[in-house]
Amino acid sequence: MKDFIVTPWEVSGDVDYTKLVEQFGIKLIDPNLMKTIEQISGSNHPFLQRRIFFAHRDLDWILNEYQQGNKFFLYTGRGPSGDIHIGHIMPWIFTKWLQDTFNVELWFQMTDDEKFYFKENLSLEETHQLSYENALDVIAVGFDPKKTFIFSNIELANTLYRHAARIAKKITFSMIRATFGLTESSNIGQIFYTSMQAVPAILKSLIEERNIPCLIPHAVDQDPHFRIARDVLPKLGYYKPASIQCIFLPGLKQQSKMSTTNGTDAIFSTDSAEEVRKKVGNAFTGGRGSAKEQKELGGTPDVCSVFKYFFMMFILDNEELLSVRNECLNGERLCGECKSILIEKIVKFLRHHQEKREKARSILDKYWISEKIDLKQLVNKK
Amino acid sequence: MKDFIVTPWEVSGDVDYTKLVEQFGIKLIDPNLMKTIEQISGSNHPFLQRRIFFAHRDLDWILNEYQQGNKFFLYTGRGPSGDIHIGHIMPWIFTKWLQDTFNVELWFQMTDDEKFYFKENLSLEETHQLSYENALDVIAVGFDPKKTFIFSNIELANTLYRHAARIAKKITFSMIRATFGLTESSNIGQIFYTSMQAVPAILKSLIEERNIPCLIPHAVDQDPHFRIARDVLPKLGYYKPASIQCIFLPGLKQQSKMSTTNGTDAIFSTDSAEEVRKKVGNAFTGGRGSAKEQKELGGTPDVCSVFKYFFMMFILDNEELLSVRNECLNGERLCGECKSILIEKIVKFLRHHQEKREKARSILDKYWISEKIDLKQLVNKK
Repeated sequence: MKDFIVTPWEVSGDVDYTKLVEQFGIKLIDPNLMKTIEQISGSNHPFLQRRIFFAHRDLDWILNEYQQGNKFFLYTGRGPSGDIHIGHIMPWIFTKWLQDTFNVELWFQMTDDEKFYFKENLSLEETHQLSYENALDVIAVGFDPKKTFIFSNIELANTLYRHAARIAKKITFSMIRATFGLTESSNIGQIFYTSMQAVPAILKSLIEERNIPCLIPHAVDQDPHFRIARDVLPKLGYYKPASIQCIFLPGLKQQSKMSTTNGTDAIFSTDSAEEVRKKVGNAFTGGRGSAKEQKELGGTPDVCSVFKYFFMMFILDNEELLSVRNECLNGERLCGECKSILIEKIVKFLRHHQEKREKARSILDKYWISEKIDLKQLVNKK
Repeated sequence: MKDFIVTPWEVSGDVDYTKLVEQFGIKLIDPNLMKTIEQISGSNHPFLQRRIFFAHRDLDWILNEYQQGNKFFLYTGRGPSGDIHIGHIMPWIFTKWLQDTFNVELWFQMTDDEKFYFKENLSLEETHQLSYENALDVIAVGFDPKKTFIFSNIELANTLYRHAARIAKKITFSMIRATFGLTESSNIGQIFYTSMQAVPAILKSLIEERNIPCLIPHAVDQDPHFRIARDVLPKLGYYKPASIQCIFLPGLKQQSKMSTTNGTDAIFSTDSAEEVRKKVGNAFTGGRGSAKEQKELGGTPDVCSVFKYFFMMFILDNEELLSVRNECLNGERLCGECKSILIEKIVKFLRHHQEKREKARSILDKYWISEKIDLKQLVNKK
């Protein structure tokens, strides 16, 4: 029996990433590969050092191509079903590092169709509107407007649908059932959808009319989509897209993935300082029953959600992190202190993010590409 | 056991239309309905009198709406998988009559995506190119350019996909399997496709932002698509599309549907007089083994493909048709004579059609609507 589930639409249970690597058939980023990245980039991002980005497909190949002058482009995306939390922003920070380090384009897909197909209560207007709102958070991360293209599937359907069709012809319902666990009761939009998610991996190749490698940074739950894309795209004459995959930023409660459905579990990009204080204040920690006990026995940072936040986003200096950990283990610091520090760090991060997010409204069109067409006008012009 | 099969993708065996009406749950056009049409239109098309257009869904309702001033629009289409034969043109002639008689718009869908999904050996470029070629035949029939909108699914995807998505969310794989007989080995484009064929039934409603009745003239094999559309569209707040359905023009051999896959069985819109002579010369007739025998016993026009062509398209005068039939039954005319007459009629028809077809090249843009967008330009403009 499985004790955890990871699909693009459901992450539950206590995810065992080692098992997942085996289940999915992805590869761990090994020391050799780490060395190669360091050689090329001149640095190594803490998310790599800490194995937050921990797995990949063909990353070695794409770096080798890069070294030989065959530059890749980046592709990632977002399912616009609600507000952005910092668990979403984390991989984008890394994606920005990739863009800056390798000086490459980023194609960013807003899957408004997907979220409409999979969320019973969301209308297409709602997921589409959320695409714009979520794009503000993407832009706030600081991507290069000259090299970043954000689009919604609904708005780019003129380009996407025809290529999705070519991909869809190579995918059977059996494959979809085996890969995603969809059933006979699944709607036909859900069944078709993965072909829309495959297209951006070849968009730049289509535009430039030559085969260009694509690297997809994404959370590990999206791997099934790209497993299918890697199966189909070579049949159409394209490279297999490569990927670099991260774990999930945990929620503030004791579970595996920060969730938008539980407002108190996640720190949203638009949360006020007061909300952050309240949420972190109530976070699950590795503390003991009493201060006295904790001073005697020490805390358990490895199960502590506050420490996970330090580890994954808010204390990027290794020595600082290590000293926090040791002090906790030795009973030299109590949970209140850690919470205060995390609150301060998150509030500072959000203040900065929210400023840039507001500014993003006026520069959205520097990033957003759209094929908006009014059929009414077309018909009347005729 | 079924002795015939009728789906949108396969028509085989000797089709029993009475059984089909029962199987599909469509209604025969009865004398009352015929009378209503005659009252409104002031005439009655031979294809109706002869029950070539023989069945319907909600035709009574849509005529009633029309009489009360709630005008409908027409929607029909073509799967561009090859050249046009006169079996395709027959329902378009009737559709033009509907357009002229009721003074209504026609929306004409070229399902280049469908034919790509279902024809193993056709590329999307091929089916898309065939859309333009086939459109010339549509235009040659003489539709009003001010009231006729021809489009390809691939080119209108910006409009179509978003509404197909809304429809797709209401359709499960089980429904697709039950309605079309698709299986687990079907590709996910085939499974998704029916949602694209449903959209034109609401296109005019979308443009005018009010609910407008839609009448779909089509060959009976397309009914499963619209059965689903009629199920789903009311859930989205639209009228059920109504339909008026025709039988298939038979091939020149002894079978039920003129087929593009057998070049000698069908008369193509671009056939030369010589080709027509050869094909009709080799047609299956109801003649006897010898002229002597036929003069004594008479022929059997009811199984004769030549007579079927007279009946369905080439002798629209009832008295003339009846006299041909009687002369055949009485052994007063031989097959050679009928073949000569049919050849003459088809050649005349095609000469006229081919002339208009060539002229259509220069006026295609008066009919064709497109959302053609070059992503490359979009990206470079940014």
